[in-house]
Parts: sequence; C-alpha cells; structure tokens
Amino acid sequence: MTTDGYVVSPLFFPGGDIGKLAVYGTVNDLVVCGAEPLYLSLGFIIEEGLPLEVLRQVVCSIRDAARLCSIPIVTGDTKVVPRGAADGIFIHTTGIGRMRPGINLGPHRVQPGDRVLVSGTIADHGIAILSAREGLDLGPALQSDTTPLHELVRSLFDSAIDVHFLRDPTRGGVSAVLHELSDATHLSVVLDELSVPLAEPVRGACELLGLDPLYVANEGKLVVITASKDAERALACLKQHACGREAAIIGEIASMTPPQVLVRGPLGALRVLDEPTGAPLPRIC
Amino acid sequence: MTTDGYVVSPLFFPGGDIGKLAVYGTVNDLVVCGAEPLYLSLGFIIEEGLPLEVLRQVVCSIRDAARLCSIPIVTGDTKVVPRGAADGIFIHTTGIGRMRPGINLGPHRVQPGDRVLVSGTIADHGIAILSAREGLDLGPALQSDTTPLHELVRSLFDSAIDVHFLRDPTRGGVSAVLHELSDATHLSVVLDELSVPLAEPVRGACELLGLDPLYVANEGKLVVITASKDAERALACLKQHACGREAAIIGEIASMTPPQVLVRGPLGALRVLDEPTGAPLPRIC
Repeated sequence: MTTDGYVVSPLFFPGGDIGKLAVYGTVNDLVVCGAEPLYLSLGFIIEEGLPLEVLRQVVCSIRDAARLCSIPIVTGDTKVVPRGAADGIFIHTTGIGRMRPGINLGPHRVQPGDRVLVSGTIADHGIAILSAREGLDLGPALQSDTTPLHELVRSLFDSAIDVHFLRDPTRGGVSAVLHELSDATHLSVVLDELSVPLAEPVRGACELLGLDPLYVANEGKLVVITASKDAERALACLKQHACGREAAIIGEIASMTPPQVLVRGPLGALRVLDEPTGAPLPRIC
Repeated sequence: MTTDGYVVSPLFFPGGDIGKLAVYGTVNDLVVCGAEPLYLSLGFIIEEGLPLEVLRQVVCSIRDAARLCSIPIVTGDTKVVPRGAADGIFIHTTGIGRMRPGINLGPHRVQPGDRVLVSGTIADHGIAILSAREGLDLGPALQSDTTPLHELVRSLFDSAIDVHFLRDPTRGGVSAVLHELSDATHLSVVLDELSVPLAEPVRGACELLGLDPLYVANEGKLVVITASKDAERALACLKQHACGREAAIIGEIASMTPPQVLVRGPLGALRVLDEPTGAPLPRIC
C-alpha cells in the first residue's frame, strides 16, 4: 500500500500533467518495491472556479494513464474548497499491490562491487517543470520523462536478473536515492560523471542555471543495483524498452569509509556529492 | 478500499478536529459497508507557514484516533505548498478493510415495512462546525458527534441482527442517505418527525437559522435499516453503547408511489422532503 500527493505547478507541462504524474507516480512506487499494482484510489481537492475543461483534461489523462498501466481506479473522493483556499487542483492517489513471489529487494542485499544503473537520461522532469514555470524556452526536445515503469521492472524480474535494489529517483533525484542507500548500508557509492546519461537541453539548462542534474527530479526513471556479474545483462534488458533505451551503468558500490556518495569527474578526480537539503525546486510533483 | 479528503474549516472545533475526522470518517466508511478496518494511509497537503504546533496537534489527534480504532497507519505522504496555495492543512485518508463473512447489506435487501433507525441525535456535527466558524455561542453542550462506529456496527452484527442497509449520514445528512436509498430501491421512506432525536441546542440553532436538521451533516451516526421484526432488538443493541444511547426508530420503508422521502409532522400531515441540492454548508469535513 502506498500513497502520494500531487501538487505540481503548472498542472500541464511539456511531456505530462498532474493526472499522469498521479497515476504513474503511485504505480512506480509500487513496482520499485517488487509489487504488481492492483488497485488505485483517487482523491481530488479542487479550488472553486477551476474551469471544468481543465478538470476534464486532468480526468481524461488519469483515465488514459490508468488504462496504460491496466490498473482499475476502484474508489475516489472530491472536495471543493472556496476560491483561494487551494491552488487549482490537488490529487492524492493510493495504490495497492501484490508482492511478486520470490522477490527480495532492499539495502540489505547491496554489496561492495555491485553496479549502479539508471534506466535513461536524468533530470528531464525537474528541468521541464522549471522551464514551464519560468517560461524558459529550452526547445521542444525538453520534455518531462513522466512514464510508468511497470513493464521495465517486470522485464528485469522476468529475465531472472538478481536485482538487489530498485528505486525511482523522484524528489532529490539520483543523489537522494544514493544517499539514502549509503546511509542504510554504511557503504559508499562511486559514480562516473561521464557515464550519467543527460539530454542535451537538460545539460545546457543545468549549466546555465547552476543545477547539478544528479539532484533534479525524475518521474520515469529507475535506479537499479545488481551484482557486478548481472550488470551487463540488466543493461541489455533495460535497453530493450522504449523508456530504457538510454540506460547506463553509472557507478558502483564501494566499501571505503566513511560511507559517502562520490563522483569521479572527467579528469578522474573524486568529489563528494552532498546530501540534498531543502527543496531547490518545490512543487515538482 | 475507500478514500476521503478532509478540508474542514476550522481545523479544530467543539468535539473534534480534522485529524479525528480523517481517521473516523474513513473507518466509518469501511464499517458501514460491512468491512473490518485493517489499514490506513495518510496524505497531507500543508500550507507553508502552518505553525508546527498545529501540525503536532493534528498528528497527535490522528495517532489517538487510530489507536482507538486499533487501525495501523501503514504509509503516508506530506507535500508542502507555498503560503496561499492551500488553506492550512488538507488530509486524504485511504482505508482498506476485509469484508465480514456472511454480511449481506445493500439497497437490494430493503423491503416495504422495514424500519429506519438512527443511532442518536442528528445534525450535531454540522451545527458545531457552523457555530465554530461563525462565532455563534450556542453553549458548551453543542459538540460535533465525531466518533468511530466500528464497535456499534460490530455489536449489531455480533447480535445476529439481520441488518438490511447501513450508512453514516455525513454530507447531506439523513435526508441524503434516504434519498439515495429511495432512488436505488424505487421505494418510499416515511419518517416520523417527532421521533427524530435532536439535542436541544441543535434544535434551537436549526430553528434560529432556518435549517432542517435532516439535511445537516453527522460524523458519528448510523442510519440502520432492518426488518420490522428485528427493529426493537436493533434499537436495544444500539442503546447499549455510549454513542448509541439516544438511538431511535424514526420511520419505515413504504411501497407508495412515486418513490419519495416523506416526513409525518407533529399533526400527522405528510410533507415531501426535497433532495438536498448544492452545499448549504461547505467544508464541514
């Protein structure tokens, strides 16, 4: 059982909208735990005066997203609050899943030498939201990656790849996931900066705005950790999917102390990746 | 599985607060379907600047309410939105329950001659919210009835009373429940106005404000429909509980056409109870 609130601003952005986010985000939270999504519930808080056409678009988007994930929406609730008491529309979704038999995921499985993979380019969602919100014209190629990950995860499991750890790097980005993992395992993570896949407009926007893409949110990416021997097979498996074509092995787990997250730069020097603090980019989801 | 959003204003009111409402409301939605509540999830949307002390009070209230219902809160989410983008705090709860074996509830069970019971005085919640919001001083006796109904319902079932239909009359009050039932069954409901239990301050407030208590929300009451032969036993069972002491048989199901909800006044005349429309009292829960 998982629940998540969606308060993204703006409601519609390049590559997605609050409705898709709400469905895919909850489906993704289930699948990275090793669960098959079964049922969704939906709660709306709507500001009086929200154009009905906007509500219609959001609801249609939810319908399409739920169909794509084959997950029924079994119950829901709608509250309307006076103008000014909410900002447009807020959505809560709760998802129920059934654990896939034989799956054993978690920090306890992670060992020194394990490889760290991402399923594609990172930071697309956060930068797309930022550009939509600030009216930056970063070109049509810049789109949120909002996508359900159920098929990607299912095919990893169906290929009998021994996945040790799975997470969708949303708020706080890849950095937040790896810091949590390092805290839980007392192990270090060493990333290779040149291996981290980045879309060109995102690279440009991050340089321009002084953002580290490792801290920027994603809404359709996986961080996968497997034993070294399985890493190439996991990579090939991810690359077979449209949403995993740009998957890459970006680093490995190391036993060096103190436990920290390190990035090897283009010239080979290691720098420490600080823990994400605060919310550099609020209301991204 | 059931979900509900809570946007009540004010957050604290005589007899309850948004935290108790959120837990009891969801527990009650489960129990009136014949389910034993198993798990809750909790989603917060919090306005930046909400005093931490307010959040602490709400969370403690949720903790106490969940303990009282013996229901674990298994997952949650918190989103913070900028000042002005929400009004204090909004809560969504989702509940999962397991259907009690052998329970068969629903409009399909309701027959002419069945009796309509309520588990106590009506309209307490809506009038308490109204008085808190408008600063009306209606005396200390006026309290919301915010209460979990799991024990009341369990004891009806444990007494092997053949309950035909159960509902907690929240938004739209007893009238909304009976109109829905009449629509679903194509049967009429005849209420006896003098039998409807009303607390004195609520009666006074309704007269003063021109509100019909049958339309005002409750947050800890049951509408119970049983066969005529079981009605007295159901009444005795309800009265054994602190929150059912003022239970009453308030009417019966009739086959007269067209199907409508009627109220027999003090002088014996029947008047039609119109369907609740609009929201005479918004943000009551």
